[in-house]
Amino acid sequence: MSETSRLTETFNQTDYQLVGHGKRNASVLKEAFENVDEHLESDRYGSGKVIEDFQAKMALLTGKDTAVFFPSGTMAQQIALRLWCDEKALKKVAYHPLSHLEIHEEDGLKELHNIQSVLLADKDRVIQLEDLTGLKEEIACLLLELPQREIGGQLPSFETLEKISAHCRSKGIKLHLDGARLLEVLPYYNKSAEEVCALFDSIYLSVYKGIGGISGAILAGDSEFIEKAKIWKRRYGGDLMSLYPYIVTADYYYEQRADRMGEYYEDAQELAILFNACRGVNTLPPKPVSNMFHVHFHQPKAQVAELLSDIQQQTGIGIASYLKEVDDTTCSYEVSMGDLYRNIPEKQIKTAFRLLDEKMKQLEEDS
Amino acid sequence: MSETSRLTETFNQTDYQLVGHGKRNASVLKEAFENVDEHLESDRYGSGKVIEDFQAKMALLTGKDTAVFFPSGTMAQQIALRLWCDEKALKKVAYHPLSHLEIHEEDGLKELHNIQSVLLADKDRVIQLEDLTGLKEEIACLLLELPQREIGGQLPSFETLEKISAHCRSKGIKLHLDGARLLEVLPYYNKSAEEVCALFDSIYLSVYKGIGGISGAILAGDSEFIEKAKIWKRRYGGDLMSLYPYIVTADYYYEQRADRMGEYYEDAQELAILFNACRGVNTLPPKPVSNMFHVHFHQPKAQVAELLSDIQQQTGIGIASYLKEVDDTTCSYEVSMGDLYRNIPEKQIKTAFRLLDEKMKQLEEDS
Repeated sequence: MSETSRLTETFNQTDYQLVGHGKRNASVLKEAFENVDEHLESDRYGSGKVIEDFQAKMALLTGKDTAVFFPSGTMAQQIALRLWCDEKALKKVAYHPLSHLEIHEEDGLKELHNIQSVLLADKDRVIQLEDLTGLKEEIACLLLELPQREIGGQLPSFETLEKISAHCRSKGIKLHLDGARLLEVLPYYNKSAEEVCALFDSIYLSVYKGIGGISGAILAGDSEFIEKAKIWKRRYGGDLMSLYPYIVTADYYYEQRADRMGEYYEDAQELAILFNACRGVNTLPPKPVSNMFHVHFHQPKAQVAELLSDIQQQTGIGIASYLKEVDDTTCSYEVSMGDLYRNIPEKQIKTAFRLLDEKMKQLEEDS
Repeated sequence: MSETSRLTETFNQTDYQLVGHGKRNASVLKEAFENVDEHLESDRYGSGKVIEDFQAKMALLTGKDTAVFFPSGTMAQQIALRLWCDEKALKKVAYHPLSHLEIHEEDGLKELHNIQSVLLADKDRVIQLEDLTGLKEEIACLLLELPQREIGGQLPSFETLEKISAHCRSKGIKLHLDGARLLEVLPYYNKSAEEVCALFDSIYLSVYKGIGGISGAILAGDSEFIEKAKIWKRRYGGDLMSLYPYIVTADYYYEQRADRMGEYYEDAQELAILFNACRGVNTLPPKPVSNMFHVHFHQPKAQVAELLSDIQQQTGIGIASYLKEVDDTTCSYEVSMGDLYRNIPEKQIKTAFRLLDEKMKQLEEDS
């Protein structure tokens, strides 16, 4: 067995895991539907009580006129950007070089809409006001991702957000929020979703990240914008006959977890301290600002995979199910805190991190 | 209450319904998942056993190299046509004037791909070989919808299909099957899915029409084509984190109903005879060639709605939940036969149709 598949296997065999809400399996759906009346009527191509009620709840949450449920955030965000480009008759938008749209969507925005992207800021930091004021090209829309996932979930200050928002308004640039993890950043900002969303013209949020649903996304904005978004949703084939399997689960887990984002944030900070105390290990950001961060191990991937597998087998604590090679001497993985962390006996966590520190030291000494 | 909402309400209150598999509510999902192990692992962005197994089953069914599960047929078909256009470097496709792409997708094909559509045949008949041989423009792809839904589900002969297929091959035109209701036409053709699909380069079939799943579609074709389709699926935002709620239900109802398409076809023929025996009522086509047909009532919509509501209340037999106005003196609705028809006591069906005949006669005499 390769080191990598052993890592996944030992992770899956542990009694406790540091990260997440639990396995992504049919129990996620079955639990959410257990107490759902079998007579609950399906939505039909975007209409019906089950979809309309949840959309209304999300409109209220974000403080926007209205909201629409999409099968995916990819679809929702491309459509949002297209609409803002159409409004300004300018096919140019700006976002971070590691935006989901730039690196995970096979260039859908460009291929389907012929929209050009202007990449703001360096890859390893978040967008600041100066990136925008220094921009020579005209753009229709700026997309901000909060937190910036690919760099461990970093955030600009709320003051910076306010300044960027004011700048965009003064220049006629629409501001779109990639808030896949919107709820997850509220504890750090100490703001309501509505207060954050008020700075933006349109909002996307995911129902399967911190909320832990199965799939799906919300796009919120003013009524005219959302009416147009619904037409594009039809064009994309996103107006499914029935979306209720995703909506019912989204609503069920939203009710369970929306109020726990503060806990996940605290837990992320606590866990990051444990990682940073280990030899040759550090987190990005050093002090998490949401429920997520990246862990960097300064040893080659194969050795770290072996070391983590051993710890997982020895302690029954799942640390990582995969590792990504950064370079020959560094590897990393992503942590998203969820329900599982607080179930772990403290003593076992301590043992796991003591072992991690010892084994990383040993590796360093051996190399 | 309007005549229309009374029609829906009385239909929903009946003990038996002529059409369909039953109400589209949460029971459809709950039944399919009842015996699913809660440890069943989710698919992840297009990978995983649950999606790969079903795709393999559908590839086998259609006799194609490979198949991919899409959230919707709209998405699957636009992508198929785009790929064939790219291959020929010609953004022009032909289909029926009442194709789903032309009338139900907000011009997605044109807006997202800038592909032109050439409309073949008159609205009220299916495409014949002559429509194609008489075509002056060059096209990259021809889409045939079997059966042609908007005209009651009509079919060309199998011989015509073979000729069209041969013509397309000789001219370098790709032939795509809009087989939303592919399984439903097999009894009439007396062919296997593979035999029908062999005439086409790419196949779409729906999992929530005759099969009765919740949502979703299959696109099948050769490996190179499907690999490219997967890239476009990602671009569209169709590569959902998890599609298993649709896949598990699709598979469950496929196993239950794939072999019952012959029954639905027979029942459609039987039911059409009953409708055609009533004064001022006829079906399109007169003799169904699949599980579907349209019923035309030659009286104004408001009066027919009232009359059907009365019969539904009186007999407990649901005939129609809606009516569409064709013109001032005609209205219609669509019948799709499913599991429910064979549950109805014959005597009650007879009573309902006796009443329908009498009341339509009465309307005619009063007018």
